[in-house]
Amino acid sequence: MIKIVILGGGNIAYHLTSQLLKNKTARVVQVYNRSIEKIQYLDDKTSITDKLTELKDADIYIIAVTDDAISSVSSELNFKNKLVVHTSGSVAIDELKSNSNKGVFYLLQSFSKEQKIDLFQVPICIEASTEKDLELLEVLAKSISKKYYKINSKQRKSLHVAAVFVNNFVNHLYYIGNEICEENKIPFNILQPLIQETANKIEALSPFEAQTGPAKRNDVKTIKKHKAMLAHNQHEIYTLLTKSITKTYGKKL
Amino acid sequence: MIKIVILGGGNIAYHLTSQLLKNKTARVVQVYNRSIEKIQYLDDKTSITDKLTELKDADIYIIAVTDDAISSVSSELNFKNKLVVHTSGSVAIDELKSNSNKGVFYLLQSFSKEQKIDLFQVPICIEASTEKDLELLEVLAKSISKKYYKINSKQRKSLHVAAVFVNNFVNHLYYIGNEICEENKIPFNILQPLIQETANKIEALSPFEAQTGPAKRNDVKTIKKHKAMLAHNQHEIYTLLTKSITKTYGKKL
Repeated sequence: MIKIVILGGGNIAYHLTSQLLKNKTARVVQVYNRSIEKIQYLDDKTSITDKLTELKDADIYIIAVTDDAISSVSSELNFKNKLVVHTSGSVAIDELKSNSNKGVFYLLQSFSKEQKIDLFQVPICIEASTEKDLELLEVLAKSISKKYYKINSKQRKSLHVAAVFVNNFVNHLYYIGNEICEENKIPFNILQPLIQETANKIEALSPFEAQTGPAKRNDVKTIKKHKAMLAHNQHEIYTLLTKSITKTYGKKL
Repeated sequence: MIKIVILGGGNIAYHLTSQLLKNKTARVVQVYNRSIEKIQYLDDKTSITDKLTELKDADIYIIAVTDDAISSVSSELNFKNKLVVHTSGSVAIDELKSNSNKGVFYLLQSFSKEQKIDLFQVPICIEASTEKDLELLEVLAKSISKKYYKINSKQRKSLHVAAVFVNNFVNHLYYIGNEICEENKIPFNILQPLIQETANKIEALSPFEAQTGPAKRNDVKTIKKHKAMLAHNQHEIYTLLTKSITKTYGKKL
């Protein structure tokens, strides 16, 4: 059994703790959080603490706190010869300041506490400063998810930006779609099948091949009609994305 | 049985014809296309023609041609007292120029011939100039899909723009995500579960509630790090969408 201490009480710590408590390869020996109230619900399942000086012995210490707190939390871990990992997409491995071995255990998914997530479907990106530690993280990753990837700090940073495009920005386009529907008294769920199909399509086709619409066709007439209907903010986004699509196909076709 | 003539040989005509050939409420009595080669494959299933003067008698004539050709094709239909509909999202009902009754039968989905589509999942937007014709389109819509909506021409135009945002533009953001992955030798399919989750999430939450990420948190430090990594075109889109998200939450929170 891999002995694990989890540090943090946010969304990632929450989902990770829930999964690891029923995991057969690893055992959560302790959960730490600055405010004990937030992890009180774990009291009957594992040891809990709000003191970094009272951490138990473990093989892996998983720091699942906000990006800004990773350096300071890790700098307070004074033991050696253990593996200390963080779970952030945008923080480099060397921002860990403990004297122990370092690693990263990044779950590539958008987490909220309300939404149930099947971690088995979530890709895990691992990185470690030694080959032995990488192997340990591999064993842990395999016990949680069906997919894991060895991703270095530079790649992970890029991946995090890519995730902003396909998740945060995509959701904002859904928001604009919703806004246009509301303005015209159309139920937004009418767009749900199209949204699903758009996401499904790129399992079989590359996004380059899957592209359709007036911008790709360079259908100036339709583009002009659309622009005339849009509010300022929507208009600006429509114009820029249309330009970008036109450029993508103008260059390559 | 509702007798149907389909005019067109493109993607929508293709999917609609396939479905209606096995439909129990309607019967495809003829398919017309300007070039007969494109519909030759239907020869053993229904009557085919490339002459508008030789159209058979039917209850509904479905014009599934490109937007620009709707007016001219419809103006050549010289019969009266039939229902003539088009299938376009962005063309108003009165751009139909036949002497018959007018209507719209718009399938809200992105079609390509390679991709199989279950029309039962595709919302159908119907519009007609008389109540009787609207009822006829209702019967037809119900026989094809589990969801249909009465949507007027003005609403349909807005819906078409909304669809550009949640389909064409979203796919372009997938393209940029793919581009960033390729530049960093990361397999793009690592993002697939996140893309799926982003689409699934808004079945339960509104896009406003579902939003996450540095722009929503106004996390200036991460935003700055991201921008420093992006190419010109990516940078421009990142900046505008981040501004739009910040504004959305700045105003409402």
